Amino acid sequence: MQPNWIKQRAYLTPNRIGLRFGGESWTFQQLHEEALHKAKQLATLVKRGERVAIFAPSTPALVKVIYGCMHLQAEMVLLNGRLSAAELAYQIEDAQVAVVLVAASEMHKLPQNIKVVTFEQLAELDEAQVEIAGEWHEEQTISIMYTSGTTGFPKGVRQTVQNHSMSAISSALNLGVTEQDVWLCTVPIFHISGFSILMRSLLYGATVCLYEKFDAQACVREIAEGDVTNISLVSVMLERVLSEMERLQVQAHPRFKAALAGGGSIPVDYLQRAAKVQLPVVQTYGMTETSSQTATLTSADALRKIGSAGKPLFFNEIRISGTNQPFTEGEICIRGPHVTPGYIGRFAERVSTENGWLLTGDIGYVDDEGYLYVVDRRADLIISGGENVYPAEIENVLLAHPYVLEAGVCGVTDEKWGQVPLAFIVCKQAITEDELRAFCQQKLASYKLPKHFYCVASLPRNGSNKLLRRKLIELL
Amino acid sequence: MQPNWIKQRAYLTPNRIGLRFGGESWTFQQLHEEALHKAKQLATLVKRGERVAIFAPSTPALVKVIYGCMHLQAEMVLLNGRLSAAELAYQIEDAQVAVVLVAASEMHKLPQNIKVVTFEQLAELDEAQVEIAGEWHEEQTISIMYTSGTTGFPKGVRQTVQNHSMSAISSALNLGVTEQDVWLCTVPIFHISGFSILMRSLLYGATVCLYEKFDAQACVREIAEGDVTNISLVSVMLERVLSEMERLQVQAHPRFKAALAGGGSIPVDYLQRAAKVQLPVVQTYGMTETSSQTATLTSADALRKIGSAGKPLFFNEIRISGTNQPFTEGEICIRGPHVTPGYIGRFAERVSTENGWLLTGDIGYVDDEGYLYVVDRRADLIISGGENVYPAEIENVLLAHPYVLEAGVCGVTDEKWGQVPLAFIVCKQAITEDELRAFCQQKLASYKLPKHFYCVASLPRNGSNKLLRRKLIELL
Repeated sequence: MQPNWIKQRAYLTPNRIGLRFGGESWTFQQLHEEALHKAKQLATLVKRGERVAIFAPSTPALVKVIYGCMHLQAEMVLLNGRLSAAELAYQIEDAQVAVVLVAASEMHKLPQNIKVVTFEQLAELDEAQVEIAGEWHEEQTISIMYTSGTTGFPKGVRQTVQNHSMSAISSALNLGVTEQDVWLCTVPIFHISGFSILMRSLLYGATVCLYEKFDAQACVREIAEGDVTNISLVSVMLERVLSEMERLQVQAHPRFKAALAGGGSIPVDYLQRAAKVQLPVVQTYGMTETSSQTATLTSADALRKIGSAGKPLFFNEIRISGTNQPFTEGEICIRGPHVTPGYIGRFAERVSTENGWLLTGDIGYVDDEGYLYVVDRRADLIISGGENVYPAEIENVLLAHPYVLEAGVCGVTDEKWGQVPLAFIVCKQAITEDELRAFCQQKLASYKLPKHFYCVASLPRNGSNKLLRRKLIELL
Repeated sequence: MQPNWIKQRAYLTPNRIGLRFGGESWTFQQLHEEALHKAKQLATLVKRGERVAIFAPSTPALVKVIYGCMHLQAEMVLLNGRLSAAELAYQIEDAQVAVVLVAASEMHKLPQNIKVVTFEQLAELDEAQVEIAGEWHEEQTISIMYTSGTTGFPKGVRQTVQNHSMSAISSALNLGVTEQDVWLCTVPIFHISGFSILMRSLLYGATVCLYEKFDAQACVREIAEGDVTNISLVSVMLERVLSEMERLQVQAHPRFKAALAGGGSIPVDYLQRAAKVQLPVVQTYGMTETSSQTATLTSADALRKIGSAGKPLFFNEIRISGTNQPFTEGEICIRGPHVTPGYIGRFAERVSTENGWLLTGDIGYVDDEGYLYVVDRRADLIISGGENVYPAEIENVLLAHPYVLEAGVCGVTDEKWGQVPLAFIVCKQAITEDELRAFCQQKLASYKLPKHFYCVASLPRNGSNKLLRRKLIELL
């Protein structure tokens, strides 16, 4: 059992700032009270243990709804704001949510036939009588996020009280924690990168400095003036922050502790530029299934261990499947209290681990000092601007087109986004790139849209006819 | 499961200093290797899961033996260096230890008939073949410490992997943790106050700056020069540190973070003096059964909430038995992952908690802001120089004297030690104070010896003939 984090945090440090947004701020006591009110309103729609889908940009209203759901112990399905209506419909149906809570601004993105309650409607509801638990079970699911894999079907990943707390604790033992911590959140809250900032805030008593959208100028102002101590970002955001710091000729304030950079590897050039502006960059390897970071590379090691994701956090273990030898590649396996106990919906029966080990599907090795290197992402995962793009998911969509016989998708390096997807198809009948793009647009989030569609005579396959995605690029 | 802390720490931060003593220091990698060697030597004497009693002053040799026992997963019984031979014999027998490891300097304090292995003998042993576990179960007992209670019979309290880790984590979330942390350890390692410093060191990657004995001059030098960030101490030590700082007219270095003051309440005068020399004092309420701190009062609150032990640490809960009302006194009950699962030896069957709540026997209340005040210690506990002294234990010894009919012990305020015990007896035959003192000396640690022995006509008792220890003082 753990104490209800929101209640405990408000009890321990009621007057500390828990959230800052624009010119406004809220103490932990205020957040607790607003969340309690929200929980009682929500209780008219949802019972403890039922699921709520949440679809909203990163605003204080979203934070309060999230904390309200936590008080009520409703499991939250965080919907990615960039998904297509078809993708959203799949997740909402799979999760069997009792209600979809949506910010009015996002209404138009949802499928038509879904019953929703807007944040504004929620705010009008009377409070229901409901008992707010003082303690939470470690195994209780707080949040659910969908992630695709080899099958191309998104699986709803459970993130429990234990997962989030041990993730936050391991991170604290690694990055340090003080009363003065302020974490700048400009990554989406519907991603584990953003959601985990809220969890750390409650557990640490740290301030979340929230922005609705990433804004390089604002980030640099916060970092240079020492108003924040931490930021989470992906490669493309780091580059924009660095450019802005270079343009303004400013450095990170000495109070600033770490830019946590995830979502794929960071180019060496960025690391060198970061060192010049005194911006400590901590590279991290993590995923939805591990409720954020699993390994990190300290900024001190950044230029000595280029390409490495560092070492595991204290309570985590990483091993390479089938080997104990350094420099030998194999599947990266992760064990620890931050690893998801499993999935919901149609994949509820699927086990997520073997003897406690999560088989990530990612390929990597460990060097002679125990530093992890990620060589190839699982299922040929493409990471585009920090978003995971699974080739199989795009291929499934393409194969649904009546003119498409075979489809293969791979990533290609892109200066801005890190990677972008490319599609290769074998046609039954001639079809234009524009037609294919329009077809995909109906089914896929825009960041998943292949940048180009190439019609080819055949796709590279191995002896057992398995598609060799890594050879697709040779067709160009 | 948790990773073997020593191995994991050496893997993650091999080159960081784990221990400093005199002019010497050891990295975590060195400590790991020396502990491995020690574990393999110990394996010739003890098997995994068996018990080892340890009796030694606070030296690097002790730290290495402790880490060796942890590698071997032998349960350690930490023997208090100030106990009498009779008290030691009781604990060694009760714990059924496989071996008693002893520093040569302490040999003479042990009972004659005990088979021991000195640290020096241990160092001469060949290594045995033994597998060192990579993971530890949360429920595994790391250490055992004896503490007395109402019965006067010391009970061996189990302190598990989970107890120590959650205690350290909760403390980190409260006091903060950074890569630069150095914890000055001048409290005995055989007490939870000292032992928990070692555990925090492994979990945080923090340096332990160890002294064999408390030395106010050395403490002040470390604190004033910024060579340490934390210190644990009791009231009498704090006073000596303050006097020395005042004498030298020095202040705590800005790097210094917190003096953690436990073992009973701290006089207001000390807090005011501490504020003048910029020494942040964090008062704490904890005990052997909670593997160190349960509640702390921040230095910011020290002069606003005089007499308070503060608020619980994040993962802990405190309630007052039988009431939810502020300012209402009752028994202090504690719940959390740091609470012992129970005892060993003759009290192995005794349950330590009710519905997860440890009933401390201490009486206290919570104010309207949720701050805990400890009003009366359990079983009329006397805290003398940070050591717990249980009246019942002394009374049992006195009652064993043929001339003593009744005995009652209580504490009286003492300028140097905080409290000292006084004994009141009803005699069968006349007996001198010197005779009683000599009798007690054979059976009791010197800090437990009553300062005075008073012969009285009768002891204050209630209607059911229960001794009223708090009324003893009125007999003077």
